[in-house]
Amino acid sequence: MWSLDQVALHNKPTDCWVIIKDHVYDVTDFLQEHPGGSKIILKYAGRDATTAYEPIHPPDALEKNLPSSKHLGPLSASAAQSVANDQHNRKKTKDELRVEQALLQRPPLVRIMNLADMEEVARKVLSHKAEAYYSSAADDHITVTENARAFSRFFFHPRVMRPVGKCDPSTTILGFKSSIPVFASGAALAKLGHPLGEVNISKGATTTGIIQMVSSNASASYAEIIQAAPPSQPLFFQLYKNADDAVAEKRIREVEQLGYKAIFLTVDAVIPGNREKDVKSPWVTEDLERGSPKVHVDGEVEGGDTVFGTAGALIAHDDRDLTWEKTIPWLRRMTRLPIVIKGVQCVEDAVLAAEAGVDGILLSNHGGRQLEYSLPPIEVLYRLRKQRPDVFDKLEVYIDGGVQRGTDVLKALCLGATAVGLGRPFLYAQSAYGEAGVVKIVQILEREILTGMRGLGAASVKDLKPEMVERVDWEPLPRAKL
Amino acid sequence: MWSLDQVALHNKPTDCWVIIKDHVYDVTDFLQEHPGGSKIILKYAGRDATTAYEPIHPPDALEKNLPSSKHLGPLSASAAQSVANDQHNRKKTKDELRVEQALLQRPPLVRIMNLADMEEVARKVLSHKAEAYYSSAADDHITVTENARAFSRFFFHPRVMRPVGKCDPSTTILGFKSSIPVFASGAALAKLGHPLGEVNISKGATTTGIIQMVSSNASASYAEIIQAAPPSQPLFFQLYKNADDAVAEKRIREVEQLGYKAIFLTVDAVIPGNREKDVKSPWVTEDLERGSPKVHVDGEVEGGDTVFGTAGALIAHDDRDLTWEKTIPWLRRMTRLPIVIKGVQCVEDAVLAAEAGVDGILLSNHGGRQLEYSLPPIEVLYRLRKQRPDVFDKLEVYIDGGVQRGTDVLKALCLGATAVGLGRPFLYAQSAYGEAGVVKIVQILEREILTGMRGLGAASVKDLKPEMVERVDWEPLPRAKL
Amino acid sequence: MWSLDQVALHNKPTDCWVIIKDHVYDVTDFLQEHPGGSKIILKYAGRDATTAYEPIHPPDALEKNLPSSKHLGPLSASAAQSVANDQHNRKKTKDELRVEQALLQRPPLVRIMNLADMEEVARKVLSHKAEAYYSSAADDHITVTENARAFSRFFFHPRVMRPVGKCDPSTTILGFKSSIPVFASGAALAKLGHPLGEVNISKGATTTGIIQMVSSNASASYAEIIQAAPPSQPLFFQLYKNADDAVAEKRIREVEQLGYKAIFLTVDAVIPGNREKDVKSPWVTEDLERGSPKVHVDGEVEGGDTVFGTAGALIAHDDRDLTWEKTIPWLRRMTRLPIVIKGVQCVEDAVLAAEAGVDGILLSNHGGRQLEYSLPPIEVLYRLRKQRPDVFDKLEVYIDGGVQRGTDVLKALCLGATAVGLGRPFLYAQSAYGEAGVVKIVQILEREILTGMRGLGAASVKDLKPEMVERVDWEPLPRAKL
Amino acid sequence: MWSLDQVALHNKPTDCWVIIKDHVYDVTDFLQEHPGGSKIILKYAGRDATTAYEPIHPPDALEKNLPSSKHLGPLSASAAQSVANDQHNRKKTKDELRVEQALLQRPPLVRIMNLADMEEVARKVLSHKAEAYYSSAADDHITVTENARAFSRFFFHPRVMRPVGKCDPSTTILGFKSSIPVFASGAALAKLGHPLGEVNISKGATTTGIIQMVSSNASASYAEIIQAAPPSQPLFFQLYKNADDAVAEKRIREVEQLGYKAIFLTVDAVIPGNREKDVKSPWVTEDLERGSPKVHVDGEVEGGDTVFGTAGALIAHDDRDLTWEKTIPWLRRMTRLPIVIKGVQCVEDAVLAAEAGVDGILLSNHGGRQLEYSLPPIEVLYRLRKQRPDVFDKLEVYIDGGVQRGTDVLKALCLGATAVGLGRPFLYAQSAYGEAGVVKIVQILEREILTGMRGLGAASVKDLKPEMVERVDWEPLPRAKL
Repeated sequence: MWSLDQVALHNKPTDCWVIIKDHVYDVTDFLQEHPGGSKIILKYAGRDATTAYEPIHPPDALEKNLPSSKHLGPLSASAAQSVANDQHNRKKTKDELRVEQALLQRPPLVRIMNLADMEEVARKVLSHKAEAYYSSAADDHITVTENARAFSRFFFHPRVMRPVGKCDPSTTILGFKSSIPVFASGAALAKLGHPLGEVNISKGATTTGIIQMVSSNASASYAEIIQAAPPSQPLFFQLYKNADDAVAEKRIREVEQLGYKAIFLTVDAVIPGNREKDVKSPWVTEDLERGSPKVHVDGEVEGGDTVFGTAGALIAHDDRDLTWEKTIPWLRRMTRLPIVIKGVQCVEDAVLAAEAGVDGILLSNHGGRQLEYSLPPIEVLYRLRKQRPDVFDKLEVYIDGGVQRGTDVLKALCLGATAVGLGRPFLYAQSAYGEAGVVKIVQILEREILTGMRGLGAASVKDLKPEMVERVDWEPLPRAKL
Repeated sequence: MWSLDQVALHNKPTDCWVIIKDHVYDVTDFLQEHPGGSKIILKYAGRDATTAYEPIHPPDALEKNLPSSKHLGPLSASAAQSVANDQHNRKKTKDELRVEQALLQRPPLVRIMNLADMEEVARKVLSHKAEAYYSSAADDHITVTENARAFSRFFFHPRVMRPVGKCDPSTTILGFKSSIPVFASGAALAKLGHPLGEVNISKGATTTGIIQMVSSNASASYAEIIQAAPPSQPLFFQLYKNADDAVAEKRIREVEQLGYKAIFLTVDAVIPGNREKDVKSPWVTEDLERGSPKVHVDGEVEGGDTVFGTAGALIAHDDRDLTWEKTIPWLRRMTRLPIVIKGVQCVEDAVLAAEAGVDGILLSNHGGRQLEYSLPPIEVLYRLRKQRPDVFDKLEVYIDGGVQRGTDVLKALCLGATAVGLGRPFLYAQSAYGEAGVVKIVQILEREILTGMRGLGAASVKDLKPEMVERVDWEPLPRAKL
Repeated sequence: MWSLDQVALHNKPTDCWVIIKDHVYDVTDFLQEHPGGSKIILKYAGRDATTAYEPIHPPDALEKNLPSSKHLGPLSASAAQSVANDQHNRKKTKDELRVEQALLQRPPLVRIMNLADMEEVARKVLSHKAEAYYSSAADDHITVTENARAFSRFFFHPRVMRPVGKCDPSTTILGFKSSIPVFASGAALAKLGHPLGEVNISKGATTTGIIQMVSSNASASYAEIIQAAPPSQPLFFQLYKNADDAVAEKRIREVEQLGYKAIFLTVDAVIPGNREKDVKSPWVTEDLERGSPKVHVDGEVEGGDTVFGTAGALIAHDDRDLTWEKTIPWLRRMTRLPIVIKGVQCVEDAVLAAEAGVDGILLSNHGGRQLEYSLPPIEVLYRLRKQRPDVFDKLEVYIDGGVQRGTDVLKALCLGATAVGLGRPFLYAQSAYGEAGVVKIVQILEREILTGMRGLGAASVKDLKPEMVERVDWEPLPRAKL
Repeated sequence: MWSLDQVALHNKPTDCWVIIKDHVYDVTDFLQEHPGGSKIILKYAGRDATTAYEPIHPPDALEKNLPSSKHLGPLSASAAQSVANDQHNRKKTKDELRVEQALLQRPPLVRIMNLADMEEVARKVLSHKAEAYYSSAADDHITVTENARAFSRFFFHPRVMRPVGKCDPSTTILGFKSSIPVFASGAALAKLGHPLGEVNISKGATTTGIIQMVSSNASASYAEIIQAAPPSQPLFFQLYKNADDAVAEKRIREVEQLGYKAIFLTVDAVIPGNREKDVKSPWVTEDLERGSPKVHVDGEVEGGDTVFGTAGALIAHDDRDLTWEKTIPWLRRMTRLPIVIKGVQCVEDAVLAAEAGVDGILLSNHGGRQLEYSLPPIEVLYRLRKQRPDVFDKLEVYIDGGVQRGTDVLKALCLGATAVGLGRPFLYAQSAYGEAGVVKIVQILEREILTGMRGLGAASVKDLKPEMVERVDWEPLPRAKL
């Protein structure tokens, strides 16, 4: 039972305690291991760090990462009260005030007609930090933009005079039923946008009959997320493999035990991408508070530190030396779950994946967040279909990145994809309206997919054929803002 | 002879009367069948519904759809007067006031130089609901925009030193003479834009010697429309086939008897498209009246209803299971009129239509209102010309969608089209200036077609050849606003 | 010697006199023949018409078109004085006041760096009518815009390490020396922009050593124009052939006698193009004076007249039935001057021209003023080079349309053109600064051509080769406004 | 020891003295030789010219160009004081005041995330003249813009599952080690942007381990620049060859003696380009001071002088008659240093260079500053790779122009380039923050290159392969402004 004064004594790099949710922790030894760097912890040395900690760490993070000897026990009641009072009396930042207003002005959910409407609401109600983390992408945002634009170069050859009164958009993914050929692709830090975070997606996916892929970097614990759904509901796990095989194995054992149904090994983000919007985010909020931009003073000593923002911290300990020869056999030894390679970005690697005998590949450039000018996934899919159609017989192929409409999904299916993942749209939906937002966008996609299938003359997903899409040689104008 | 008080007693779902044009109707049993849903009728339960009813129902709709036992007879004179007074004293909405001003500010008709000028006027004088219904298209309006843009990729190889002093732009469509190779394509609900609706088009087409195709969903009755023209004037009928063959047969018999000269079977709109602008339209006018947008309240219970707007209502009972094998032979048994398939969207189906022995095909994606990313009709025509030129010898080929200029018409004719349909331009023209507007746009098109033919060195439509157009590999800038 | 009162009596269609430059003319019989229509003359019936007459008629127009019996003689001195007073006291229009200000604010000529700078000044100092007539083009100005844009798809393969210290940009056109491979292409009504009109061009061309092609529709007389230059200066004549061969012959005899050196037969403008900006021009100035736009009154009776603006009037009597078989032999019989066909727009007609044995062809779509979507001349030239390189051995090939920079000229020369014509730039230059403006743009072009030739490694025009240009498959961004 | 009054007597073309850094010079005879023209010197005749002189002349310019007899000796102390007072009391121009403010408002260097951020700062802190000189390019800035845009048409085929934990971006250029495959390309007049000019680049390059190519037209002396770096640091010399072989030889001897390690012979700028922004620059600052634009007065006599701005002056005496046959052998005789041809712009000349036996070629269109519509270097490189891959075995290939990101560098390396040059970015960086700015952009590029190599699955530059880039057939949208 600690007092605030006692904690406050431990406020330096060589002796650093912090308070999180009314408990005291000695993080002195951990400072150097913290993926986000020691600086951000030292900002709270000897003080309460809960507000900064919560949205980006799952509840079991302390348990998993800090030896129990460093869990120093609870604050005294009066200290806890004092922390609560401070939190309550704290002056809100300009960004927090803005968010409060934006939440009050959200339109009724029934007025959300499409995923762009949902994103528009979400971008307004998100904190600047969250909005920057979610929307940021590599370098100049060329790739993230082109991922979406690429779909617009594929037009349909719709078939008429085919019976579509009954139309079934369902499919199976790795043998698991999905109400529509869509899944929630792995995306980290959902709590940045909503207190319930990934659990919103888990519940919404259950309600609508689709499958969620859970990121290693989820801000809810893997247990929380899967336990929010009934046992019958399948979930997939997106593995960021730790450089330390033992740590990685532990993670796999955990999720297998929890009941996750497949492993999506992430290969498109072994190092942090250059996400400038994310890195710049603290400066923006600083300047906003200050009321004017910070200026340069000649002679100023600049830290030579490289800066990789939130994303960099998340994957700081990941394995940068994955190989086909070593990593796949290792993973096969670890688990009997189906294995999917997430992040294949060219035809050659799709072929290697098929040769390696994995169960599926997810064509993805990580939502344009990693290597700028990585070819858009729908373009990779198109090349794969044309150059190596045999690959589709050997494993399941998925894509993610830039999907906004039911027609985008159908284009991918025509070209041979089994299903299509969406990442940011689920983050935005849960940020804007929680679980109801998640349900809403799946309903929207289902309606759009049904409309599209009927318009194409397809009564089931197996009626969707490559000859129904044509890659045109012109560039349509961007969507009209109605 | 009913009093308003008597009618007012029947104001619930289980007992619902409404007043339309001073007559009382019991619509209790009809509520469930109403294609537009029961909600919109119940809004007027026990009250006068005329203003909402008139612009979207033909005058014979009650007769055709409500058993005569439910026609309860007229209002008393004082009740009718009271309804009239209410209507007269009713406070106008902001949108109505805007429209009144816009009507006063229309430019003189002589200043309408082209179809874009006409559309500009119409968009100003239309109610928001009408403008939204007319201009709305699928999803993000990509297809509607690309339909028009596609023409701009076709350039001419004009021929010089050919005698064009005498130049005849006339042609025949299904054997019927047309002053120019243009027809009014089927388009619903003309009364939303002008009290006389489709009759304006009928009269204007007669004056200018072109042919009108009348929609099953016209807001004037099929009889009214054809009777506004002399017996010598041919009209075509655009059939939306009811799922119930008997109902469909009745409709065909009616129009055949009235003297319509051909059946255009609609195959590109068996289900409603996703027309968001149309669906959103009531919210826009609501918010305009309210002066601020409606906001979300947490816990709000949202209806799970799918929303398909005006268009959805119009085709709610249509046949979604049309097939080449079943529907064409059935239609041939029903009628000896020429049959055209409206809504062919790819080369394969054009070939099937030719094999099915129909008289014509209208390459159309329903003005971009149905399946987003359906290839623009001029592009389908171009592919048909290149891949299957034989089809042009077996049936007549028409296109519609995106036509704005005489040069657009000529490009289609060079590629083998017999004639070109326009839909929205006729709705806009009659909305802006009634019948005179219709006449004006045909005159404009005739002038533009004549100028174009002479510029191409063509003295008659048969001089227009495929080698006169080249599909270029660049994208011209959009039209200059002069 | 007429008084104003006497003239004023003749103010009706059946008896119509007008005053022009203090002389009285009876134009009653001429009303029906006037290419610009009777309406515009009747506006001045019984009154002075000089201001409207002068900028669009050459001084010898009355002499050529009105029998001498209708030349009724001069006004009395007091009447002439009265006309002058009226003119002097006349309230200036808003457009005239705007032009006066704009003239005062012209930048010094030394600051005109390029043809776009010159056009910018000209567009400001021109009356609305003149600006509309000069800049107007067919339909939506697609073609006029694409004419210029097309050049930007041609990039250079510059050669280095070639001696370019001495560099000669001169060439010959039909055997006549030209200081640079550029000529002033025929363009009508230069007086709309400057009182001296085409004479400015004639003098400027002489000063700079290039050749002027004079339009049949020049606003200065053919004699004035050629006599402004020394006998050694060659001029070409752009023939609009009258439908009446005798009238056409008279025109040819006149210019041959005056010393014009070649006949450019216009075949791309046998009928008026649809130039909406030109047609709308009077309404714009009307509304400007009125202070508000004119509005439509229901029931208004609209004239059914087709409207073809200034251009329509100029060519009302021209021959619409030119043919290779008839017209070329006729022209050869009429004259021994070299014959060039102006307005060839496709490869097929270039071949026909070569077979017809003419001396040259000018690939031109009339500056985009006639048939919208006529292929840009540089594109036609490119196709001609690829498909029929033999044509370049049989006649000289020129292009005009969209030329703005020395590099544009060089691209055409690389592809085989002998020289390049510019139309509007000369109109703009003389409008902005008179003869000095004409000299200036030739100096600019010469400097740009020299810079370009040296950059390409070409010491003379014969070093410019097809392999030095590549038609790229992308679309450069438009020019930066510096 | 001169007084100001004495100097002031010599203030005319026939007797012209100027003061520079408190010394007096007789420049009468030199007036005609001055590459920038006599006019600019005469502006300071009899007066102090230091401020205008310093940023565009290396300190040894007077020594090299003016016989010692014309060095008339120092000012008297009181005269020097008076000049200093005048300079101190001088009223600052509006442009100078703007720059002062801009310098105070620079963001901290740590906030500069990329080269575009750096350019943005620089453009604000540069004088208008400097900004115009640095950013100006030929004609309409098409080429400079397309140089950069061209990179965006090259997308990656990234390889996954390759070990990239260790990743080495270093390479060698002409045998000299470079920490990353990037060098500072020759660019003149760095002192226009910062008092230390090229020395900033020399020092920054040393710190970061890259190589600087020094322009013949540097504003610091060749000695100053190389002596700012340690002897172990290699520097290259960009030779503008004087038309006079003896002068050229002297220059080569000088730099060889100073220790420069290679000669880059400039062949893409033998004459000045048409850089309008540079030429217009004085007018812009004049008008800014005046507060209104200068206007034209009719009759004004305009100088017929051609205008070539700053760039024109710099190369006025250069050799315009370079040839493969003559110049390369001459240069081989002059020096044993490696020879690189800077400014090859097409495949044919790359082949000729290989045949001429030079050590390297720099594909460059002089940053778009010379011939408008010269193909972008990355496009030339792409064609060279496809058409003549053998050339890469015979010499080293570099490109410069439009490079902004690490991915740009990697695209060039995949296609076979040894290294990539940047010109303007170094000028901007040193203008904004001096040497620290130079270091910063190299650090940024290194980080981006490392991120890109790892994203591509490349652990060293030799893992970058042609099959990793695809030239796509669409045009990505421009970079998002985050």
